[in-house]
Amino acid sequence: MSTAQRPIRLGVAGLGRAFTLMLPTLVQDSRVQLLAACDPRAAARAQFLRDFGAPAYPDIEGLAADPSVDAIYIASPHALHARHTCIAARHGKHVLVEKPMALTLAECDAMITACRAAGVQLIVGHCHSFDAPYAKARAIIAGGGVGPVRMIHALNYTDFLYRPRRPEELQTEAGGGVVFSQAAHQIDIVRLLAASAVTRVRAVTGAWDAQRPTEGAYSMLLWFETGAFASLGYSGYGHFDSDEWCDWTGEMGARKAQQDYGRARQRLARLHGRSDGAAEEARLKAASSYGGPDYRPAPAAAAAAHQHFGPVIVSCDLADLRPVPDGVWVYGDERRALVRLPAPAIPRHEVITELYAAIAQGVRPLHDGPWARATLEVCLALLQSAREDRDVTLARTSAGRAGR
Amino acid sequence: MSTAQRPIRLGVAGLGRAFTLMLPTLVQDSRVQLLAACDPRAAARAQFLRDFGAPAYPDIEGLAADPSVDAIYIASPHALHARHTCIAARHGKHVLVEKPMALTLAECDAMITACRAAGVQLIVGHCHSFDAPYAKARAIIAGGGVGPVRMIHALNYTDFLYRPRRPEELQTEAGGGVVFSQAAHQIDIVRLLAASAVTRVRAVTGAWDAQRPTEGAYSMLLWFETGAFASLGYSGYGHFDSDEWCDWTGEMGARKAQQDYGRARQRLARLHGRSDGAAEEARLKAASSYGGPDYRPAPAAAAAAHQHFGPVIVSCDLADLRPVPDGVWVYGDERRALVRLPAPAIPRHEVITELYAAIAQGVRPLHDGPWARATLEVCLALLQSAREDRDVTLARTSAGRAGR
Ligand SMILES: NC(=O)c1ccc[n+]([C@@H]2O[C@H](COP(=O)([O-])OP(=O)(O)OC[C@H]3O[C@@H](n4cnc5c(N)ncnc54)[C@H](O)[C@@H]3O)[C@@H](O)[C@H]2O)c1
Ligand SMILES: NC(=O)c1ccc[n+]([C@@H]2O[C@H](COP(=O)([O-])OP(=O)(O)OC[C@H]3O[C@@H](n4cnc5c(N)ncnc54)[C@H](O)[C@@H]3O)[C@@H](O)[C@H]2O)c1
Repeated sequence: MSTAQRPIRLGVAGLGRAFTLMLPTLVQDSRVQLLAACDPRAAARAQFLRDFGAPAYPDIEGLAADPSVDAIYIASPHALHARHTCIAARHGKHVLVEKPMALTLAECDAMITACRAAGVQLIVGHCHSFDAPYAKARAIIAGGGVGPVRMIHALNYTDFLYRPRRPEELQTEAGGGVVFSQAAHQIDIVRLLAASAVTRVRAVTGAWDAQRPTEGAYSMLLWFETGAFASLGYSGYGHFDSDEWCDWTGEMGARKAQQDYGRARQRLARLHGRSDGAAEEARLKAASSYGGPDYRPAPAAAAAAHQHFGPVIVSCDLADLRPVPDGVWVYGDERRALVRLPAPAIPRHEVITELYAAIAQGVRPLHDGPWARATLEVCLALLQSAREDRDVTLARTSAGRAGR
Repeated sequence: MSTAQRPIRLGVAGLGRAFTLMLPTLVQDSRVQLLAACDPRAAARAQFLRDFGAPAYPDIEGLAADPSVDAIYIASPHALHARHTCIAARHGKHVLVEKPMALTLAECDAMITACRAAGVQLIVGHCHSFDAPYAKARAIIAGGGVGPVRMIHALNYTDFLYRPRRPEELQTEAGGGVVFSQAAHQIDIVRLLAASAVTRVRAVTGAWDAQRPTEGAYSMLLWFETGAFASLGYSGYGHFDSDEWCDWTGEMGARKAQQDYGRARQRLARLHGRSDGAAEEARLKAASSYGGPDYRPAPAAAAAAHQHFGPVIVSCDLADLRPVPDGVWVYGDERRALVRLPAPAIPRHEVITELYAAIAQGVRPLHDGPWARATLEVCLALLQSAREDRDVTLARTSAGRAGR
């Protein structure tokens, strides 16, 4: 059968946490078929073989050369995204690469060039800007009934910094910290809602835990070409949890268990004072990853609501919009109403929709290379503004600036 | 009896909305006694005479010259605060002046100088930084158990811009808009919690309603001498109401009626299209003020909780603190707990406590002239940063910078 009818035959590069989070999507959405993988961890490869009866290679070259694969989902660590994307493209494979797209704009350019040269699609995700409530809010705005976007306020308080980490996840130079991993989501969402190019960035970062010396928090102002502006705030220090302002629905759309307060720190506390703490922590992370001894598959039951990335308020002339796990609140001049979005049967199916439309129908994806490069550009400007203590203006010629 | 024992004999300059909001305090708190007033509105004077059997003068000179008065609560429009304060001081009266302290730093300096020269106390309030939960949060921080303040996030979404206004309240040059009236509260709270001098301001303002062409919104970053930073956000455009994140407790500490959604705009809508709309709106404001035909006294029953000025999160090394109408949430490493603060029997009694301590016991007030001048300095920097599109650094020598 033709590509237009058959599922996308997908290979996965990197069977870690990101893969684990995408797995429910990849096994439930019939538009994709898991056909191969690669990972240097033998245990992950063994489990993949057991679970899918499909080959798992020790490295990307083997996977990229596999003729049974149409597209590769690259879920390896940030620093490998560019190399893995270019290898996949060279072998004529479409690419779905995890956020952040890469660590430098030069890497992004190489990825975009490689995919264009090979005539393959490049999509960056999963990213929370795929979540249906943000897309719905954008559609409401595009509908014109609420007037232009004027101001966006996004915040998120999580325990990001205290989840078990690989050493490089705690080193900014290596792509560690909340800017590369978390601002990448938040900026993408805000750009999507503003539907306009970022022209200016002013930010400040916080790195307050000497044991985990990377950015754990930031506050940022963004200006858009339309004149709209946004305020973004993030703390990954694991105290206040802003899911309280999202009806206690967690990032993955599931109801949050209140008795789990402080759990991230508690788990890490076991490692305190150990000389091999960093290595032990990386092992702890891998242990609960796919193939690891503590790995538990995601629950089969669909989540109660949509995934999200913290409270967001979009102020337009005639209404404030608030995407929430249940839909979008529209606070108009005279009344407020929740535009309900029933919980998705398959989480993150939006990613597959965009991937499938691009590959099977040639539809230009929203989250393409230039789009994601522009988000990384803002992440880098965030770090630069904080470091140099000044506004950073973004070049007008910058690729993908227009909020398509 | 001596000043140390008897109540403060208080005169009021300006019997408008601010007075109305302070009235429950002034009649219930036995440490003050309402002995005189002044207002150009005859109806307000007549009601004052009826209610208190006390003289109400047509102007500040008459009130300031009244020998039965120890102190004057100046609740006239912003633009009169400086003149009224200086007149009161010249007559040897202590001053409690509403926020914002004044419209320019030169006015503040004149007020401070006049009060010092006369040997009278100068306190700026009511201001929401008097509210007990903020003071409690500050005390918890000062206690040292939660580590240094690193980041503060404060936001507030209200219908400020759509409450009935005098024309000058909608003209920035005349002190109109949310910066003078609302940022004055929010900045004061954030400064109190940071307990440090503001060194730098970056801000952006929004003025999106051509019918009410003053700032209705802002987003702002603040930097403090300690290295802490803060993000402040405000919208007065009357759509999303952030009291939803304060347990639906309104600014005055009362439970908020959900069916009142959109009421501010609805009331104003009656005036739309009238050629005398502005004058009619000012009449509408005055009508529900003290002495007006629509005036209703505040309910005698105590509010259910403390007053507040929107959600605030203070991130310290060892905990996030969240002052709420019921107390202060302390989100620590291992547990979270609400430090409860029972609803006050008398609202805003904190203002009288500070006033009384200053006048009767000579205790230096927190909210004195230099303190409030520093808050106005940040308000002005907010406007300047937005106008000039750049950071505004505050002079190190600036009076009252230290967050006492
Ligand atoms: N969208 C999301 O919700 C989300 C969530 C988590 C992570 N991520 C992203 O996914 C990426 C991976 O992060 P993670 O948390 O899963 O890390 P992880 O350490 O859990 O997983 C990385 C995996 O890649 C494997 N790997 C290492 N080198 C490799 C190589 N050369 N070839 C193939 N595989 C290799 C590792 O063995 C591991 O299994 C990051 O870019 C991260 O930003 C996204
Ligand atoms: N702390 C708070 O919660 C709060 C709330 C509202 C207002 N305020 C402040 O109070 C002040 C007054 O604002 P408002 O909303 O009450 O305005 P308003 O218009 O309701 O009241 C002002 C009053 O002052 C009177 N007035 C005018 N000229 C005068 C003069 N020369 N001498 C004496 N009185 C004069 C007016 O007749 C009116 O009664 C402002 O500075 C405002 O920022 C504070």
